Amino acid sequence: MNVSADKSAATPAQILRNQIRAGHHTTVTTGVAPGHLQANLVILSADWAEEFAAFCAANPKPCPLIGRSEPGDPTLPMLGCDIDVRSDLPRYRVFRDGLQVSEEMDITALWRDDLVAFALGCSYSFEAALIEAGVPIRHIEQGKKVSTYRTGLDTVPVGRFHGRMVVSMRNFTVPNAIRAIEITSRFPRVHGAPIHFGDPAAIGIADINKPEFGGEPDIRPGEVPLFWACGVTPQTVIEVAKPPFCITHKAGHMMVTDRLNEEFREA
Amino acid sequence: MNVSADKSAATPAQILRNQIRAGHHTTVTTGVAPGHLQANLVILSADWAEEFAAFCAANPKPCPLIGRSEPGDPTLPMLGCDIDVRSDLPRYRVFRDGLQVSEEMDITALWRDDLVAFALGCSYSFEAALIEAGVPIRHIEQGKKVSTYRTGLDTVPVGRFHGRMVVSMRNFTVPNAIRAIEITSRFPRVHGAPIHFGDPAAIGIADINKPEFGGEPDIRPGEVPLFWACGVTPQTVIEVAKPPFCITHKAGHMMVTDRLNEEFREA
Repeated sequence: MNVSADKSAATPAQILRNQIRAGHHTTVTTGVAPGHLQANLVILSADWAEEFAAFCAANPKPCPLIGRSEPGDPTLPMLGCDIDVRSDLPRYRVFRDGLQVSEEMDITALWRDDLVAFALGCSYSFEAALIEAGVPIRHIEQGKKVSTYRTGLDTVPVGRFHGRMVVSMRNFTVPNAIRAIEITSRFPRVHGAPIHFGDPAAIGIADINKPEFGGEPDIRPGEVPLFWACGVTPQTVIEVAKPPFCITHKAGHMMVTDRLNEEFREA
Repeated sequence: MNVSADKSAATPAQILRNQIRAGHHTTVTTGVAPGHLQANLVILSADWAEEFAAFCAANPKPCPLIGRSEPGDPTLPMLGCDIDVRSDLPRYRVFRDGLQVSEEMDITALWRDDLVAFALGCSYSFEAALIEAGVPIRHIEQGKKVSTYRTGLDTVPVGRFHGRMVVSMRNFTVPNAIRAIEITSRFPRVHGAPIHFGDPAAIGIADINKPEFGGEPDIRPGEVPLFWACGVTPQTVIEVAKPPFCITHKAGHMMVTDRLNEEFREA
């Protein structure tokens, strides 16, 4: 599914990828190229790839697989005709044996013939749908990163991959919480409906005011926190599985694709 | 949309309506003719009918209109080829000037040339979908009527029709509550997603253990109550609007149609 093959008419996503590739955009991708699907990135060697694909299939909520490259091929034509996963994200995390060894802005020098890139859906897509439906999202209104937590919930283990789920939290009034569940359930390939709402302790979050990643929440009286499976989950799973080599995006610094969020909405 | 025109092959709904018409089934219709849509009934004189139709359009969650007769015509061919609203429901409530004056098992003797019958969607349809999806419903497991409450929420007033919304309550674990919202949002013509969950006081219910209609709830630790707009709402609205003459079904004693619940599920 090659999109935007007409090189003369660059999409907002292509323009942004060009800026990232040239080192002119080095920060988070929140709110850029509106309407365009953004994706989480995981790069593994081919001998770990099948097992990771099976792990994603078994855990579709945290790991909704939307694209995969051939070994050694850094392109993802199903997501954008000119995407190069080595240079088109603003920030990368490099892991060796499950430990982060560096943060990079370009991984071309680290690329190898046996590497496989995986793209996973991202909640930015359904956030756009929520805002469009008039459901306000506090952290976006406040210009903060979404509050994200490690939970006590186990993922479904597959081979060497296992570990706890990471969730992102958004708080709403009850009527908007119902709308948010309705709307996000229509986006099963970008995390879908939340996996929990209400009491954070029920999913192993000790203090909702102390997120592991992202900004501090602002939950007001009468509001309820909703928790969605998060595409950062593979990064915690990789810390446990300890593959010899792995590269991911840095949280919030996503792959911006030529595909439209709308394409991922179910009828 | 005439269904089951082949008289030789009676549907389970037709068989049941025959039993009701003959006075052999006089109780609630919960669980009968599985898979078949059941409906709430409101009968008004023609000079109140347009305003009531507009009220339903303005309040689609409590009053999802799925069928309407011509004045004086007691049939609803869009819901079943042989439905006669005068005899095919087990129990009726007769109102004069907004007050219930009698309960009837057949209203043929009360029928008039100026009466219009309205059929409104009923939550029995989505309950079937919940059970099918493996989401257990406590009151059904316990063989009780669903707990139903008057709320402090105003309906959208139209002409002479106004009043408070009635809701039905079902309690679930949080994961099942999310599934229930997902599933029922696909049935917008049978009340759709809940209008509230959690704190009953937020919608004006003083004591959740004392429902206005139906059985007493059994809410266990960790479970959350979900509240759906209920087709009994028109009956409380009629008490306020005080039309000179009105007939409704009695709660739980529904019109069983030849249409299938599945037909009312959105893609």
